Amino acid sequence: MQFIMASMSWQSISAEKRTQIERAIPNDWKIRASPSEENVMHVPEQCGVLSHFDLEVTSLPATELVERLATGDLKAVDVTLSFCKRAAVAHQLLNCLHEFFPEAALAQAKELDEYYARHNRPIGPLHGLPISLKDQLRVKGTETSMGYIAWIGKRDETDSVLVKLLRKAGAIFYVKTSVPQTLMVCETVNNIIGRTVNPRNKNWSCGGSSGGEGAILGIRGSVIGVGTDIGGSIRIPAAFNSLFGIRSSHGRLPYADMANSMEGQETVHSVVGPIAHSIPDLKLFMKSVLEGEPWKYDSKVIPLPWRQAEEDSIKMKIARKELNIGFYHHDGVVLPHPPILRGIEIVRSALEKVGHNIFPWTPYEHEFGVNLVNKIYAADGCTDVYRNINASGEPAIPNIKDLLNPNLPKADVNEIWDIQLQKWHYQRAYLDKWRELEGNMGREIDAIIAPISPTAAIRHDKFKYYGYASIFNLLDFSSVVVPVTFADKEKDPKMSDFKAMGNIDADVQAEYDPEAYHGAPVGVQIVGRRLSEERILAIAEEISRILGK
Amino acid sequence: MQFIMASMSWQSISAEKRTQIERAIPNDWKIRASPSEENVMHVPEQCGVLSHFDLEVTSLPATELVERLATGDLKAVDVTLSFCKRAAVAHQLLNCLHEFFPEAALAQAKELDEYYARHNRPIGPLHGLPISLKDQLRVKGTETSMGYIAWIGKRDETDSVLVKLLRKAGAIFYVKTSVPQTLMVCETVNNIIGRTVNPRNKNWSCGGSSGGEGAILGIRGSVIGVGTDIGGSIRIPAAFNSLFGIRSSHGRLPYADMANSMEGQETVHSVVGPIAHSIPDLKLFMKSVLEGEPWKYDSKVIPLPWRQAEEDSIKMKIARKELNIGFYHHDGVVLPHPPILRGIEIVRSALEKVGHNIFPWTPYEHEFGVNLVNKIYAADGCTDVYRNINASGEPAIPNIKDLLNPNLPKADVNEIWDIQLQKWHYQRAYLDKWRELEGNMGREIDAIIAPISPTAAIRHDKFKYYGYASIFNLLDFSSVVVPVTFADKEKDPKMSDFKAMGNIDADVQAEYDPEAYHGAPVGVQIVGRRLSEERILAIAEEISRILGK
Repeated sequence: MQFIMASMSWQSISAEKRTQIERAIPNDWKIRASPSEENVMHVPEQCGVLSHFDLEVTSLPATELVERLATGDLKAVDVTLSFCKRAAVAHQLLNCLHEFFPEAALAQAKELDEYYARHNRPIGPLHGLPISLKDQLRVKGTETSMGYIAWIGKRDETDSVLVKLLRKAGAIFYVKTSVPQTLMVCETVNNIIGRTVNPRNKNWSCGGSSGGEGAILGIRGSVIGVGTDIGGSIRIPAAFNSLFGIRSSHGRLPYADMANSMEGQETVHSVVGPIAHSIPDLKLFMKSVLEGEPWKYDSKVIPLPWRQAEEDSIKMKIARKELNIGFYHHDGVVLPHPPILRGIEIVRSALEKVGHNIFPWTPYEHEFGVNLVNKIYAADGCTDVYRNINASGEPAIPNIKDLLNPNLPKADVNEIWDIQLQKWHYQRAYLDKWRELEGNMGREIDAIIAPISPTAAIRHDKFKYYGYASIFNLLDFSSVVVPVTFADKEKDPKMSDFKAMGNIDADVQAEYDPEAYHGAPVGVQIVGRRLSEERILAIAEEISRILGK
Repeated sequence: MQFIMASMSWQSISAEKRTQIERAIPNDWKIRASPSEENVMHVPEQCGVLSHFDLEVTSLPATELVERLATGDLKAVDVTLSFCKRAAVAHQLLNCLHEFFPEAALAQAKELDEYYARHNRPIGPLHGLPISLKDQLRVKGTETSMGYIAWIGKRDETDSVLVKLLRKAGAIFYVKTSVPQTLMVCETVNNIIGRTVNPRNKNWSCGGSSGGEGAILGIRGSVIGVGTDIGGSIRIPAAFNSLFGIRSSHGRLPYADMANSMEGQETVHSVVGPIAHSIPDLKLFMKSVLEGEPWKYDSKVIPLPWRQAEEDSIKMKIARKELNIGFYHHDGVVLPHPPILRGIEIVRSALEKVGHNIFPWTPYEHEFGVNLVNKIYAADGCTDVYRNINASGEPAIPNIKDLLNPNLPKADVNEIWDIQLQKWHYQRAYLDKWRELEGNMGREIDAIIAPISPTAAIRHDKFKYYGYASIFNLLDFSSVVVPVTFADKEKDPKMSDFKAMGNIDADVQAEYDPEAYHGAPVGVQIVGRRLSEERILAIAEEISRILGK
């Protein structure tokens, strides 16, 4: 679908869209001057736009917000206003919004407050909670450009299924956040709003493709945001902004009626899921959506309610200090930067200290798996993404050239089937490895601790290797990102004895600079078998508890 | 993979394979003369091969067999011997086996009896139960030709995952049953053993592609058989032989390490499942396999154990006579023959009489759905199937020309993605229809009663319309076939006022001949939403109880 405004250049369309976003911010919420510092985390407290109440509300966990909204201690209108103000500040600092609609949000909040006044109870488990949405989710009356200029100019007529269920649960929508053109990169830059940056340092990426979510959550302009992940796009922004995020297995949460790249590509599914400031907030989101029985609305969703018994059984193991956790520092293709290696080590030693069983895990042929998933991303010779790019005449962003080269050949149908068969065989071989522990040691593996990216929050245009994330998209394993630490120029010197395993390894390691990365967030992922969300969230919760998060 | 024996014509390879099967039948199990009657159902009782004990054992339900095997009242060796004898007779009458291995089966049975003697308990829930396998399942030491001459000549080195789990549960394997060349038709004929016929009338098809299963179960040479279904291949043979069969949704039972046509095609998945003589036997199979946790071995299987709560909740509705059941006589494309229309009416009136809520259901754009699924079957321009046919020089069977024309063009990758997107949209629109009842009538639809084929067990080479079955493969809905009645020349005269809805409708109806179809089995399918196996089996059980089966 292409919605090009007749006789306008792509530059004018893009400029017009930027003006619209700017105009949506009331003057009272404008910050006086752009701060000169690279780290803007302190600006919301100091800029004068937010009241003490606003600052307090936007620092609360979602679980506490919904509790206080449910008791009537907080009003939806007040909470919404606080987040709208902080989001406005966030956008001025980080350039993270594609859509900003505080009036609609406040109208929605008013209705909820009226409902509460009438019935003396909340409308649902998310009553009055503002939730930010990646610009793939459709909200009636707003625009979904997804970073393509050709898509600008059409208001959505219905909500995505997930938006409907969240709305029914009481959530309020106020922003749609930025994405990279095509969605297929882990930084966030497009020809509409330009680049979205990291609140901890403007020279670092906020991650991508759910990068607007990473940025706005990073500066607490949102308490829970919705992203998507086909190769790290939830997990990388979570890690780069010291946040929690979950890539559920395909079929757990509803993707229906969302915009996407390469729609209909089902070999490796993009999945939707939350990014937040804590595991309890991720769980609140998951449980609230599952209560809405998404499988009745989206045929791809498995009828699998929240399985409390699964959570309880792993919590028993946690209480007995009987978790069996594998870990690895690298995947045999690219060695992570020193801060990431230290992050893995922090988690390993913390788990060991508590008394759980933690042991080295050998990643099973990740190079093969990563090559396979890369073939899938480019299976149509990038026909779909270049059609949408070319429809407006806008240029491709430079970041996509590695993964999405327009000169790639289209795969043949029988080649696609062969790739799908190889995928199944690889997934099964991985399950065999997973079961080896069971066989040899008489116990089941519970999770793997792994890097999610070879780098901490990366400098712009430097993201090169997706394999740490994308391998689990190919496997369709559940994965939760947990923030662990920050890069530290004292603790994380350059490796003196580094020997590259290959070109990409050399390239990635060459990017490391202790000074430039000082302070960059470091996260790791906790990975479990397909559809093990309840268990992996419980393990991630335990790990973040041990780490003192 | 092609395993052609050097310097042998396809005819010689085929003849050699037939001789091998014949030689596997001991002389004592040979029947003296081919019966001249068209109906051979009585032959096992009269041919002298089976003892009174054999006849009794092979007439028992699987649930009773495993109970008596578990108490030690029956020995695995004796039960296996009885089924081997009856299977040998079945093959001589119906031509239904690709592999017959009574010696291996009896050795397996002996081991199980020894286990029982040693431990005084069964090894698992299927201890000592013979199970027949469609010739797609691999059993170590046997051959999987799947009807392709080019595949003859290689012994399998491992079991399929399902075979491993069944074996672990105590099942015994003794036969691999016939399939049509390519698997992609609902009759059973290939260039290896020729045609498999229906035990109730040699002029009728046993159905396909799990046709050997239909035939051997029809004459009780097996108590539970394993088939597969990508467009009716479990359900049609069940219906044509007055049996029960379930097409589970994809991801419920493990398909890993089985042979298949068009491997890697994931747009519409072939699924594996049981055919049997009763719903309790189907449930025994499902529960026994799920107890083996197939999701640990096959990445495509969803971690979904048998959900007793689902079964119990629908049984409550059944007890209260509160089922909401839709039905339809035809799909708007092809009108079924009179015996099928009467079959639907029998079920409808029986449910109504009991007091359940039964109402007409309008099939939602089935013509569109059937055209879509047909595109998927032929997406590779039939490259895969003709490669396997041509590898030996054998000709294509005539039945496949409608669905698998070698001159069809290959779909482009973007066309495949578009088909997959259309499939998702169609599935979702169907869910919307399903929910309409909920909205309008304040209650949820529990199942749909529908024809599974427009005809009763069909005359050879006359199967033309797959749409009644394949629409639910596209939707991935759970479907259970239940036998209802038999065609009756008195009750089912030709329609005098028939007006064709189109060419295929005219063709199908023209085939009806009350005399020729007198006595042919009539089944219907009971259909539920995706992954609703527990519920649909309970409803099917209630329906067959009401029908007095």
